[in-house]
Amino acid sequence: MLFHVEMDVRIPHDLPSETADKLKATEKARAHELQKSGKWRHLWRIAGRYANVSVFEVSGPQELHDILSSLPLFPYMTMTITPLCRHPSSVREDDR
Amino acid sequence: MLFHVEMDVRIPHDLPSETADKLKATEKARAHELQKSGKWRHLWRIAGRYANVSVFEVSGPQELHDILSSLPLFPYMTMTITPLCRHPSSVREDDR
Amino acid sequence: MLFHVEMDVRIPHDLPSETADKLKATEKARAHELQKSGKWRHLWRIAGRYANVSVFEVSGPQELHDILSSLPLFPYMTMTITPLCRHPSSVREDDR
Amino acid sequence: MLFHVEMDVRIPHDLPSETADKLKATEKARAHELQKSGKWRHLWRIAGRYANVSVFEVSGPQELHDILSSLPLFPYMTMTITPLCRHPSSVREDDR
Amino acid sequence: MLFHVEMDVRIPHDLPSETADKLKATEKARAHELQKSGKWRHLWRIAGRYANVSVFEVSGPQELHDILSSLPLFPYMTMTITPLCRHPSSVREDDR
Amino acid sequence: MLFHVEMDVRIPHDLPSETADKLKATEKARAHELQKSGKWRHLWRIAGRYANVSVFEVSGPQELHDILSSLPLFPYMTMTITPLCRHPSSVREDDR
Amino acid sequence: MLFHVEMDVRIPHDLPSETADKLKATEKARAHELQKSGKWRHLWRIAGRYANVSVFEVSGPQELHDILSSLPLFPYMTMTITPLCRHPSSVREDDR
Amino acid sequence: MLFHVEMDVRIPHDLPSETADKLKATEKARAHELQKSGKWRHLWRIAGRYANVSVFEVSGPQELHDILSSLPLFPYMTMTITPLCRHPSSVREDDR
Amino acid sequence: MLFHVEMDVRIPHDLPSETADKLKATEKARAHELQKSGKWRHLWRIAGRYANVSVFEVSGPQELHDILSSLPLFPYMTMTITPLCRHPSSVREDDR
Amino acid sequence: MLFHVEMDVRIPHDLPSETADKLKATEKARAHELQKSGKWRHLWRIAGRYANVSVFEVSGPQELHDILSSLPLFPYMTMTITPLCRHPSSVREDDR
Repeated sequence: MLFHVEMDVRIPHDLPSETADKLKATEKARAHELQKSGKWRHLWRIAGRYANVSVFEVSGPQELHDILSSLPLFPYMTMTITPLCRHPSSVREDDR
Repeated sequence: MLFHVEMDVRIPHDLPSETADKLKATEKARAHELQKSGKWRHLWRIAGRYANVSVFEVSGPQELHDILSSLPLFPYMTMTITPLCRHPSSVREDDR
Repeated sequence: MLFHVEMDVRIPHDLPSETADKLKATEKARAHELQKSGKWRHLWRIAGRYANVSVFEVSGPQELHDILSSLPLFPYMTMTITPLCRHPSSVREDDR
Repeated sequence: MLFHVEMDVRIPHDLPSETADKLKATEKARAHELQKSGKWRHLWRIAGRYANVSVFEVSGPQELHDILSSLPLFPYMTMTITPLCRHPSSVREDDR
Repeated sequence: MLFHVEMDVRIPHDLPSETADKLKATEKARAHELQKSGKWRHLWRIAGRYANVSVFEVSGPQELHDILSSLPLFPYMTMTITPLCRHPSSVREDDR
Repeated sequence: MLFHVEMDVRIPHDLPSETADKLKATEKARAHELQKSGKWRHLWRIAGRYANVSVFEVSGPQELHDILSSLPLFPYMTMTITPLCRHPSSVREDDR
Repeated sequence: MLFHVEMDVRIPHDLPSETADKLKATEKARAHELQKSGKWRHLWRIAGRYANVSVFEVSGPQELHDILSSLPLFPYMTMTITPLCRHPSSVREDDR
Repeated sequence: MLFHVEMDVRIPHDLPSETADKLKATEKARAHELQKSGKWRHLWRIAGRYANVSVFEVSGPQELHDILSSLPLFPYMTMTITPLCRHPSSVREDDR
Repeated sequence: MLFHVEMDVRIPHDLPSETADKLKATEKARAHELQKSGKWRHLWRIAGRYANVSVFEVSGPQELHDILSSLPLFPYMTMTITPLCRHPSSVREDDR
Repeated sequence: MLFHVEMDVRIPHDLPSETADKLKATEKARAHELQKSGKWRHLWRIAGRYANVSVFEVSGPQELHDILSSLPLFPYMTMTITPLCRHPSSVREDDR
C-alpha cells in the first residue's frame, strides 16, 4: 500500500559540518537502498526548498514508521504523512 | 517538467445533484484523456477525503494552468501547486 | 492495521431537518454495523463538540477510504486521518 | 473518565545524548507502570513521527495533569488534550 | 471539576429573525438555570465580540457535553474546551 | 475591570536550573501577593500544560501591563490578553 | 483608556443591496457621532481592503463592548481587540 | 511608489452567470485601462488558481485603495498588500 | 502618507544583558528623535506584551524601510506593516 | 518561464558577524550576476522586513532549484515559490 510523505529538512546551523556531511552521505546511501528494494517508490526534490515529496510502498504504517524513523536525518526532518489509495478515475495500473 | 498538485473538492450542498453528477462524469472523462496523453502522470485518492494528489508533466506553468483551469470541477476545487525537480538521491529515471 | 480518524460534522443550517434526521439515523445504523464487524474499533464523542475520535482496523488505506466515503454524513464531515503503529513502550497486546 | 492526549516530542539537538537516553529509559519505565495501573489506557505511535496518541482514564483534570507533568520528557513535549465522552452510536462497553 | 469553555456565536444572516430571537431567549433562560444550579460557574462576555468565556463545574466530560450540546444556540457556536485544575500558586479555595 | 489572560511558559532548556528555580520561586511569591491584593482574581492551571488561565481585576490596560511585565517569568511567557465585560445572561454579581 | 480595534467587514453577497446601503448609511452617521464625542479617537481605512484600524478611548471594556456591538454593521464584522497603554519611549502626551 | 498585491477571486456559485460574466468583462476592460496608464505595472496569473500577482505604481496608499476598491470584482476578492522598495542588490533601474 | 506597524520584540535569552541594555537605550533615543521629527506619529505599548503598535508618516515605503531597518532592535523584531489611507467616515483632519 | 519567489532571511544571532558579512557580500555579488544574466528578472525589498519578492525567468523548476539552493544565504532563508503564467487581461508583452 502507498503512503505519500513530505519531508522538510532543517539542520541546526551549529551542528558541526562534518557531522552534517556524514549524516547526509549515510542518508543518501540509505535512500538508494530503499529505492532499489522498491519500498521508496518515488522521490522528488521540491524546487527551491531543502525538502522532498516521496511515495512509499510498504506493508503498512508499522513498516513505514520503521523506515522513516531509521533515516539518518530523521531527527532534523518534519514529516507529513498521507495515506493514498486508488483514484476511481486513474488509468495507471501501478498507482495503487 | 513536473508539478505536484493537491486538489481538494468541495461541492456546495445546494448544487442540484444532476448538475453535480454531470460535472463529475465530464471530469472523469477529461482525467482519462489527460492521463492517456501523458500530461497527468500520477493520480491518487487521498484516503478518507474527497481530494487527490497528482503529478503533471507539462511544458511549463502556462500549460499546467490551461489544463487545471479547464477541469469541469475547477470552480469547486482548492489547488495547491508545488514545482518538482530531480532529487540528487533519486535512482528512478523517470522521476524528473 | 490501525488508523486514527477525527470526524468533525457541520450540517448546513438550511438542510431540511427531515433530510438531516434521516442521514443521522442511517449513519448510526452504519456505525453499529461497522463496530460489530470489528472495523470501527473505537468511537468516542469529543466533549462539547459535534465531532468524534475513532480508531479503525482495516486492511489498508483503500478499505479505510471505502468505509469513510460511504458514511451517510461524509459530505458534511471534515476527516483528519493519522496512521498508527505499535508504540515501543506499549504493553497492551491489541493496540497494534 | 477519559482524556485523549497527543504528545509530540522534540528533544533539542544539543542535549547531551546520555541525558536524553536516561530520560527516555525513565519515560519508558513510567509508561509501563501507568499502563499497568490502568491509567494510561491506550498508547499508539503516530507512524513516521516522534509522537504518540494516547487515551488516559483518570479521576479528572487534576490527576491527568499530575501524571502528564511528571513524565520525564514533559519539558520536551507539546501536549494536546481533548476530553472524551461516550458516543451515542458506540456499542463498545469500555469506550466511556 | 472545572472546564474552561470559549463559545463563539455565528448566526447565519438568512436565519429568520423570529427564529433567532426565540433561540436567544431560550438560551438565556437555560443559562440562568445552569448558573443557579452551580454548573455554569462563570460567564463573561468577550468585549467587542459575540462570544463568551465560561467556566463550568461538572462531574466530568460527559456532563459537560450533555450541557453544552443541549444549549439552544449549540448548532451556531464554535466551542473551545480546556480542562482546568488547581494551580500550585493559587491561594483561592474555590478555584479548583 | 476584568481582563482574561492565558500565560504559556517556555523555559529554554539551557537556562541553568538554579536560575530557573529562583525565577519560579519569586514568581510564586509575586503571584501570592497579587492574589491577596485582589488584582489577580482567578488563577487556574491548564491540565497537561505548563500554562495557566487567569482573570485580573485592574484599573485598566496600564495597570495590567505593569503587573504582567514585572512577573519574573515574563520573558519566557507568551501572553494572550482578552478584555472581558458583563454578560447579559450572567447572574453572578462579581463577574464584572 | 485606549483600545485598538481592527474591523473587517464582510457583507454577504445575497443581502439585498437596499438593506446593505441603509446599514452603511446608519453606520456612517454613528461613526461621525462617536468620533465627535471623542470615544472613537482614530479611524483609518486599511488600503485595498474593506476594513479599518481604529483607536477607541473609553471608560473600560464594558463601554467598548456597548459601542462596538451597537454598530449597525456589527453582525457582518470580525473584530480584533487589543488593549493599549503608554509606551515608555513615547513622547506624545495624548497617546495614553 | 510600488505595492505588491495578490488578489484571490472567489465568485459565489449561486451568483447568476450573466452577472458574473458582466463583472468579468468590466474587470478586464478596467485592467487594460489601468495597465495602459502605467498604474498597474505587472499582472501575472498564478498557475492553477483563480488568482493573480500584481505590482502597482501609485502615488500612495490612498490611490492604491481607490483603484483596488473600484475594481468590479472587488467584493469577491481577498487582497494581500505588501509595500515594496528598492532592494540594495537590485541592478534594474525601474524596479523601484 | 501613513503606515501602521506592529513590532514584536523577542530578545534571545542568551544575548548578554549589557548588549541588550545598550540596544534598548539606543532604541529609545532613536524613537524619541523620530517622534520629534514627526515621522513616528503614534507609539503605543500593547498591554501585557513586549510589543507596540505604531503609525508612521513617511514619504513612502522606501523611507519607511530605511527607518525601520535602522532601528537598533530591528534584528530581534517581527514587523507587520499595513498601509493606511483616509477612511470615508473619518472626521479627524490629521488621520490621513 | 516565470516563478515568483518570496525569500525571508533569518540569520541566527549567534552566527559570528564576519561569517554573516561574508555571506551577505557573496550573496550580493551572486544576485548581480544572476540579474545581469536575465535569470533573476525582478528583485524588490519588502518594506520593513529582511525579505524580498523576486521573479525568476528560468528553463524550469530544475534550473530554479539549482539557482536558489546555491545562494550563499540559502540555509538561512525560507522560500515560497509560486509558478506564474500569462494573465488573460495582461497587456504587457514581457510579463509571461
